[in-house]
Amino acid sequence: MVAKVPVKLVSWDEIVEWSRGLAGIIEKSGWKPDLIVAVSRGGFVPARLLCDFLDVTNLLAIQSQHWVEAAKAAEKAILRYPYEINAEDMRVMIVDDIVDTGDTLELARDFVKRSWKPREVRTATLQWISSVAKIRPDYYYIEVKEWTWFQYPWTRLEDTSQFILRILREDERARRGLPVDSFKSIFEEWYGVKTSELGFYWEMALEKLRREKKISLSNGIIRPGERF
Amino acid sequence: MVAKVPVKLVSWDEIVEWSRGLAGIIEKSGWKPDLIVAVSRGGFVPARLLCDFLDVTNLLAIQSQHWVEAAKAAEKAILRYPYEINAEDMRVMIVDDIVDTGDTLELARDFVKRSWKPREVRTATLQWISSVAKIRPDYYYIEVKEWTWFQYPWTRLEDTSQFILRILREDERARRGLPVDSFKSIFEEWYGVKTSELGFYWEMALEKLRREKKISLSNGIIRPGERF
Repeated sequence: MVAKVPVKLVSWDEIVEWSRGLAGIIEKSGWKPDLIVAVSRGGFVPARLLCDFLDVTNLLAIQSQHWVEAAKAAEKAILRYPYEINAEDMRVMIVDDIVDTGDTLELARDFVKRSWKPREVRTATLQWISSVAKIRPDYYYIEVKEWTWFQYPWTRLEDTSQFILRILREDERARRGLPVDSFKSIFEEWYGVKTSELGFYWEMALEKLRREKKISLSNGIIRPGERF
Repeated sequence: MVAKVPVKLVSWDEIVEWSRGLAGIIEKSGWKPDLIVAVSRGGFVPARLLCDFLDVTNLLAIQSQHWVEAAKAAEKAILRYPYEINAEDMRVMIVDDIVDTGDTLELARDFVKRSWKPREVRTATLQWISSVAKIRPDYYYIEVKEWTWFQYPWTRLEDTSQFILRILREDERARRGLPVDSFKSIFEEWYGVKTSELGFYWEMALEKLRREKKISLSNGIIRPGERF
């Protein structure tokens, strides 16, 4: 059965392996950053690991992210806190987890170039979805050709919650209420992920959504909640 | 045999478990941050995980760290890039991995309070070494009573390299050169960690130190290198 939304659960070991591989590519290029800037929030873990593998002491972050404008369906990338530092003599490397559309990375890179005036800026990501991204990072470890949702371990609760809500929005049967086991089957069918692979996150997501009244869960039946 | 330097290798699973536990304590207190600020570099991974567990979108970092002044033996904490943002209406939570002396966390907290003028600042760390720290974080998951070097998974290459160099500096036999196996035995004796537990990091650290000429490694003998 083909998943409706292809999801790949990424393990911590894979994150370490990919960050190490990315560091190897950067080292081989003969270039070394003086400052690593994580794109918040996705770049935090890879940026920290790259500091270790590349022996880089200076580490900062800027927050570039998609923002759904209230009145429009369209999304655009914004910088939440466009602060300035003097990076005149520095080689800066901007790090994110994945380049999907490329909007957030591009915005972060252009801002740092223009406002921090570093000697040089390069970009590095663990993954690059080449079929949809409008920019290619200077360094990447994995080129992804078919769009996939990479479920990184630092956003497991948020993603699991979103996955559950999406089923409730889009599946007729779920909307009317389903026993947990049937709901789990739909989850596995849609995302290609067994709920047991999510460990404690599955129960934690259900509990969080129940507390927020986004789902109701009584007598073993999941349905949309009061604030769904 | 008692380790000369008590080291506890921390796994990724423990980091997730501790971050989740810390998030639970914060939630129970009834307080929720609007903005999480990671202390760079140690706070990056816990800060990102806390964003997931507490559903916090805003994430930044400031770099507060120990700095050995060239002319003195004493260390002091400095802020590398004391940038400013307007956080007037925000509850800010400053996150680090561990409070050891407490200098860096205190400096970061005082700076954010004074310069960003947030509505409120609280601090949260995975661990707190209560026997040496001069401040107690508002939230912590583990109180450590006997000083231990917690070897977090995001600083494994740096720490392994430092552990090796320390043996070469302080052990007479190692200074004159030792077969790798004997060197490994000293490592295990000093740090209470088997080199096999370090996975690929052991070989990676040796290779890095050899490339930097900090060690020499020929005919299976480790000794200080030209740039030791």
